[in-house]
Amino acid sequence: MLKSPLSLGATIGILGDGQLGRMLSQAASRLGFKVVIFGPDKESPAAQVSLASKVAAYTDEAVLARLAESCDVITFEFENVPASSLDYLTGKGAVVAPSSKALRITQDRVLEKSFARDHGIGTVDFYPVDSLDDLYAALRQSGLPALLKTRREGYDGKGQVWIRSLDEAPAAYDSLNGRPSILEAKASFTREISVVAARGWDGQVKTFPIGENHHVGGILSTTLAPANVSPAVSAEAHDIAKAVLEGLDYVGVLAVELFVLDGDALLLNEIAPRVHNSGHWTQDGCWCDQFEQHIRAVAGWPLGDTSARCTIEMTNLLGADILAWPDLSAEPASRLYVYGKDDPRPGRKMGHINRIKSV
Amino acid sequence: MLKSPLSLGATIGILGDGQLGRMLSQAASRLGFKVVIFGPDKESPAAQVSLASKVAAYTDEAVLARLAESCDVITFEFENVPASSLDYLTGKGAVVAPSSKALRITQDRVLEKSFARDHGIGTVDFYPVDSLDDLYAALRQSGLPALLKTRREGYDGKGQVWIRSLDEAPAAYDSLNGRPSILEAKASFTREISVVAARGWDGQVKTFPIGENHHVGGILSTTLAPANVSPAVSAEAHDIAKAVLEGLDYVGVLAVELFVLDGDALLLNEIAPRVHNSGHWTQDGCWCDQFEQHIRAVAGWPLGDTSARCTIEMTNLLGADILAWPDLSAEPASRLYVYGKDDPRPGRKMGHINRIKSV
Repeated sequence: MLKSPLSLGATIGILGDGQLGRMLSQAASRLGFKVVIFGPDKESPAAQVSLASKVAAYTDEAVLARLAESCDVITFEFENVPASSLDYLTGKGAVVAPSSKALRITQDRVLEKSFARDHGIGTVDFYPVDSLDDLYAALRQSGLPALLKTRREGYDGKGQVWIRSLDEAPAAYDSLNGRPSILEAKASFTREISVVAARGWDGQVKTFPIGENHHVGGILSTTLAPANVSPAVSAEAHDIAKAVLEGLDYVGVLAVELFVLDGDALLLNEIAPRVHNSGHWTQDGCWCDQFEQHIRAVAGWPLGDTSARCTIEMTNLLGADILAWPDLSAEPASRLYVYGKDDPRPGRKMGHINRIKSV
Repeated sequence: MLKSPLSLGATIGILGDGQLGRMLSQAASRLGFKVVIFGPDKESPAAQVSLASKVAAYTDEAVLARLAESCDVITFEFENVPASSLDYLTGKGAVVAPSSKALRITQDRVLEKSFARDHGIGTVDFYPVDSLDDLYAALRQSGLPALLKTRREGYDGKGQVWIRSLDEAPAAYDSLNGRPSILEAKASFTREISVVAARGWDGQVKTFPIGENHHVGGILSTTLAPANVSPAVSAEAHDIAKAVLEGLDYVGVLAVELFVLDGDALLLNEIAPRVHNSGHWTQDGCWCDQFEQHIRAVAGWPLGDTSARCTIEMTNLLGADILAWPDLSAEPASRLYVYGKDDPRPGRKMGHINRIKSV
């Protein structure tokens, strides 16, 4: 628990050293905070723009202890940080947000969806799978096709496989190497949207306008925001985000990905306990972007203005897409963000561009 | 001379470690460049957000030589960097922009105003002063009151003194400690405006909309932009900026401060060979702000879109003004920038806030 708002010049620690940490760090600096990055890579995207970095495994207790000592608040940019590392930091007297409880629930797809249901939020039908027998039993209930995923980790389409006939079950099961899994029924959705929202230590909640997401090959390709959704869908999506934030007793920014069904019912797809790719549009579409909002929330500052200045289309630059920077940087009414990664291997998130769509 | 545009991941060196270097560094990172700060202070505002920093005097040749080796382009955020240091870097094979020639001219108020006149740009009447006799002779021509300034250095009202009667001349002269000086006739201006503009290696020029500046006690207090000036004033101001950029064979961003006289004639007040406080509004008022524009220019990238998204009022937060951050950060439709300096001594630039005035 943070006793009072962080003062100017306070130090914020960030677990995770990728582009989300980079943009969090820049937002924190803009508010006058100093930033220490904790992550496995030297000269990482986040470390490049931060006062200091500690290069270590997330489980390195000696380095975690030093981080706890040097930071006024510690947060994370990466949902696969071990929850036990957060507990260790808390045990060393550090103020950590979001909490390890929120992280534990959202790290496990079964716990996450169960949490949603317990809070009156719809999800696709789902079944824990710990054996091939479980999988066959689940498939009989889910119908086909259905999606088998690992319960933990996996993102951008990794660690998941579609099952289109019972024959495919054994190979699908084997492909996940016996890891605890979840079978999800197919959602017949018409659109995918997400809500990025924040909650402060004092319980104040603010949500950003809805984004509509388009995935290609399981990876987010574009977000258009504010999305053209009905007031009813928008209101329900915001209510869901609020229920999630409050149910998790969450402090910071999170993203809730939702399926919009025919008839506009909403199902929760996933909770990301961090700033999220589908919120990058806020950098140019809102006065307070998601990165600054997260920093404000964990620092105990007033949450910022989330109203939209204009409609933005955010496009991810994956792998070799970034090599088009000479053309991308010449486009008017747009802003290019490059993450400082060396190797543009296929599918790797190298940057994004925000383009204005309408004022 | 830069042979080809800098690639992603190239390294940019910045001489100067204050808030302008800080915001230049953040803009450079956003475009995927790595940044090395060269300046006298450890954990300076700029170093806090940069990959690396070299803490040394601007004349330290050993460290300058290492900087030349490690950077693809070197620029500066501070007009009092010794021009000889830029020459030294160039001698070591570094690509430096803006050039030492541009810096030499703009570092000396007599050379600067002579340059302006040679390029058909009006200035107040001015007289070099190297002795008390010079000063009396100058005052007979300038009339009273008149402003005595050091030829070099001095900013935010430092190193200058008004002379209201001939009796005040000796004390005024003594107050500048015998340094080479300039006497400037009083300009009867109605408004102070500035133009921030950029020129690339290829000669491309882009100007930002005009800002109207209000000073308090010799220090910039607010900039309103785009300013409410006539199309004729706007066009002439842009022409002056273009003439200055081309006359100096300049690469990068500079600011031209202008007096608007009764009847809308313009006189050049000062050229700042760097990004400028009166251009901070562009961070929230334009797609490409002055910091990104400078980085684009020196990196050989296409210059960015300088059109205004809305009208912004930028207010400097001097000294203890910054302590109002709890209220400032709670304002909607605004963005707060804090520079990461510890001691809020009177008059020190601690941050600024951009507030929307109209869309």
